[in-house]
Order: sequence, then structure tokens, then C-alpha cells
Amino acid sequence: VTAQSRYWFRVALHDTDAAGVLFFAHLFRHLHDAYEALMANIDFPVDRMIREGALGLPLVHAEADFRRPLRHGNEVHVQMSVSELDRMQFTVGYRIWHGDQEVATALTVHAAIDPVTRRRMPLPDSLRGALETLSAP
Amino acid sequence: VTAQSRYWFRVALHDTDAAGVLFFAHLFRHLHDAYEALMANIDFPVDRMIREGALGLPLVHAEADFRRPLRHGNEVHVQMSVSELDRMQFTVGYRIWHGDQEVATALTVHAAIDPVTRRRMPLPDSLRGALETLSAP
Amino acid sequence: VTAQSRYWFRVALHDTDAAGVLFFAHLFRHLHDAYEALMANIDFPVDRMIREGALGLPLVHAEADFRRPLRHGNEVHVQMSVSELDRMQFTVGYRIWHGDQEVATALTVHAAIDPVTRRRMPLPDSLRGALETLSAP
Amino acid sequence: VTAQSRYWFRVALHDTDAAGVLFFAHLFRHLHDAYEALMANIDFPVDRMIREGALGLPLVHAEADFRRPLRHGNEVHVQMSVSELDRMQFTVGYRIWHGDQEVATALTVHAAIDPVTRRRMPLPDSLRGALETLSAP
Repeated sequence: VTAQSRYWFRVALHDTDAAGVLFFAHLFRHLHDAYEALMANIDFPVDRMIREGALGLPLVHAEADFRRPLRHGNEVHVQMSVSELDRMQFTVGYRIWHGDQEVATALTVHAAIDPVTRRRMPLPDSLRGALETLSAP
Repeated sequence: VTAQSRYWFRVALHDTDAAGVLFFAHLFRHLHDAYEALMANIDFPVDRMIREGALGLPLVHAEADFRRPLRHGNEVHVQMSVSELDRMQFTVGYRIWHGDQEVATALTVHAAIDPVTRRRMPLPDSLRGALETLSAP
Repeated sequence: VTAQSRYWFRVALHDTDAAGVLFFAHLFRHLHDAYEALMANIDFPVDRMIREGALGLPLVHAEADFRRPLRHGNEVHVQMSVSELDRMQFTVGYRIWHGDQEVATALTVHAAIDPVTRRRMPLPDSLRGALETLSAP
Repeated sequence: VTAQSRYWFRVALHDTDAAGVLFFAHLFRHLHDAYEALMANIDFPVDRMIREGALGLPLVHAEADFRRPLRHGNEVHVQMSVSELDRMQFTVGYRIWHGDQEVATALTVHAAIDPVTRRRMPLPDSLRGALETLSAP
């Protein structure tokens, strides 16, 4: 796992709910911020891809296991790696830590599409190559 | 104030925070849903305007006074009226009720722009006419 | 599947992103609203359970498959059923429809805990009985 | 204005909407993150205050003027100062910059309350003193 595949955030007040813990959907929001940082680090920033309009990478699957609650003010570290990579799509795996406790794991699957027709297309070679550098050993 | 200018929502778990009450920015989210319902009722649905690309109505100002806390599960009613209407922009006023208590008031100001150049432009006459029907007496 | 296990929403402007489609984490937010409606229908409203503090039902797993994009203004129907129910936890399955197209499927797993100690506990019999009425045949 | 009263964020995909620009309510969310950073810098972290339960500082007013649109990927700087400070409440003023353009201004008013009774109370002297160091000259 390369140095670039780490992300950090603090649990904000608006991330929590009346039960006193992080609301699960907000973790997915933070993980997407982590994914955006990851893609920027390999020089495929999501905002540029959307603006240029040549390649879309919509989420086709997302899942998470929530092992321990996160609370307001907690510092959270996210480790990311590309856990699967094939011709048409790739999977980012996330391990979410608070201190030395792994509080959650997650993954998101991104499929390559033509943004105009929204038809599936192969991942461009340059992106495949960049993602390979993030693959877990 | 016409019958169309009312909106209802229930405070969801994710609207609240660890202090046990509705997080203020989420009220603005609900008020924008109310605004979308208002615009659909006068036959200027926001989604159609964005899709057609002939007129943009971005928020140029928003404000709210929060008088009493709202809690998870509370039923909330919103009364809306067009409180100001001039050649270039209009103001929607919101009164937010829980039971017979006015818990908050708010307003949003929407300016007409050309979505391509983002330059200010006059409100189209048809929209002005529709908004007049929502003006507070 | 009983009549209670349906939910409806319209894709709001703030549900979409600059790629023009619903942002995936916001679907999880809507599904939790659907879940809250489901629990209220079987007389176990989430807000009352949190307020009373005798039983917590945190999400321990969530996942979704996103088959087709949803756009601003789309009307969305959600069908829910309890797809798994054991002594300690239950799974709600969601089928998400736009018109006659199934645009996504999802599931959330809820474990019974003591809200004070956060230790796992068995689902109360009354809740188990209520959830059984929502089980898919 | 002290060095502590600055905050930085990047506009994420989920901050934008189908009109291609930052959705206004999400700016309020970011400004509250900035406010949390400000309070932590003067050693009154919001999470600790909520946990200890001796003092609440709910927002009683919020407003913003949106001068220019923010887009996905934009780097945004926030300058904060305490623009009003009296016995019972204080106002934080925000200037929001993208590059050398001031894209928005905002303010939030926070009233001191007893979190149990939710009655207004005077700001504790220690907090008043800390806030004075953040007052605009």
C-alpha cells in the first residue's frame, strides 16, 4: 500500500445523530472524500474527469461493516487500496481506524462508462496502470 | 397566501446531532425541498429549469432565526410566501412551525441569471406573474 | 410484503452532484428515512426507542447495488421487507424503483444492543413478532 | 485577526448539485466545521462542551451572501473573526475566498444556554476572554 492511500478526518457535529454516534451514511460521504483524494494522488482527479467528460466512474456497488461507534471529535484514519482491478471496473477497499481500533471496513466498486451514453467501456490503460500502483500486495 | 405554499416534513435521525437537536444546516436543506415544491406548484419546477438551461435562479442570500430546538420525530410545517419581488430577483419567506409554536423563520433570495454566462437577467414575465400569486398580502 | 413496507421520495436538487445524478451516499440517507417509516408502521418508531434508551438498533452493515442513475426530479419508490431475522439482528432489504425500472437494491443489517453498555442483546420478542409480519414470503 | 482563525476546504463532489455548483446549505456545513476548528483553537472544543453538558452554544441565527459560484475541486479559504460579543451571545463572521475572489460572506450567532433547561445564561468569563482574542480590530 503506497503512502498516498491514506486519508484523515475528524468526526464533526453534523456527522453525529441524536443517538450520539456517527450516522452511517455520513461515513460513506467521508469515504468518497478519501476516494477523491486517492484519485487526485494518482493524477486522475474526479473533478477534472467530470469536467472533461471523456470518462465516468460511477459507483455501482458500495458496502460497509460498522464494528464500533464513532463519536463527535474522534480522529479517524482511512487506509485505502485497490483490492480488485479488471478490464471494466475496480474496487477500492477501505480500513477505517480510530486510534489502534479498526472501527469499520468498506468497499466501493467503480465502473468505467462513457458519460454521454452511460454505456460501460474498458478502463483506459493509463488509469489501469495508475490504479495498479495502489493494489494491495 | 395560497394553499400551495405549505410543506411538511418529519425530523429524521440524520437531521439531528449529538446535542440531540436538529443541526441548523439541515433546516436549510429541508427549506430548499419546500422551495422546490413551491416552484413545482406554480409550474416552474427547478429540475426542468436546470435541464432546459434557459434560466438559473441561484440563491444569493439565505438567513434563518432559530427560536426553539427541533427534535427527532417532530412533525414540522412550513408556510411560504413570496415576500419581495422585483425585476431581477425574489425573496421567499418561510415560517416554520411545530404544533402551534413558531420554531424558526427564514428567507432565501433568488436572482435570475443566464445559466451559461451566469450574468444577471430580468425575471421572465411568466415567472413574475406566477410568483405574484404567492405574494403575502 | 405488507402494504406498510413502501416508501416514496423525489430526488431533490441537493441529492444530485455535478455529474448530474444522485450521489450514492444520499440514497442511503433516503433508505434510512424509509427504514424509519417502516419501524413507525410496526409501532417501534426509532425516535421513541432512542428517547426511551432501552434498546438500540445500530446499523452493523449496509450495502447497495446501483444499476441505473437517478436524476433530479425523479420519483422513486422503495419496497421493503425483512429478509433475514434471527435472535440478535435483522436485515431489511430494499428494492428501489423509478417507474417500472429497478434502479438499485440495498440492504441494512440492524443489531440489538443495550444503548448504555453497547453490548449485543437479543431482539425483544415483541419486536421480533412485529418484524415477522414484514418478512418476505 | 489571529492565525488560528483560518480554515481550508476543497469543494467535494457531494457539495455540488446538478446545476454544477456548490449547494448553498453545504456551505453552512463547511462553515460549522470551520467554527468547530475555531473553538478547538481557543480550547473550547464543541465536542467537549456537549459531552460535559455544562454549557450549550446553539445557533440562534445564521446568514450568508453568495456572490460567486463555487465548483467541484475548488480550494476555499475561510477567514473568521468574532464580530460581536456581548454578555449572552457572540457572532462569528466568515469571509470565504477562492483564490483572490471573495465568493461569499456569512455569520452565525451563538447564544449561551444551560443544556438541561435550555434557558439563556451569560457566557462564562473564561469563554468571553478567549473569544475577545478573536475579535476583529
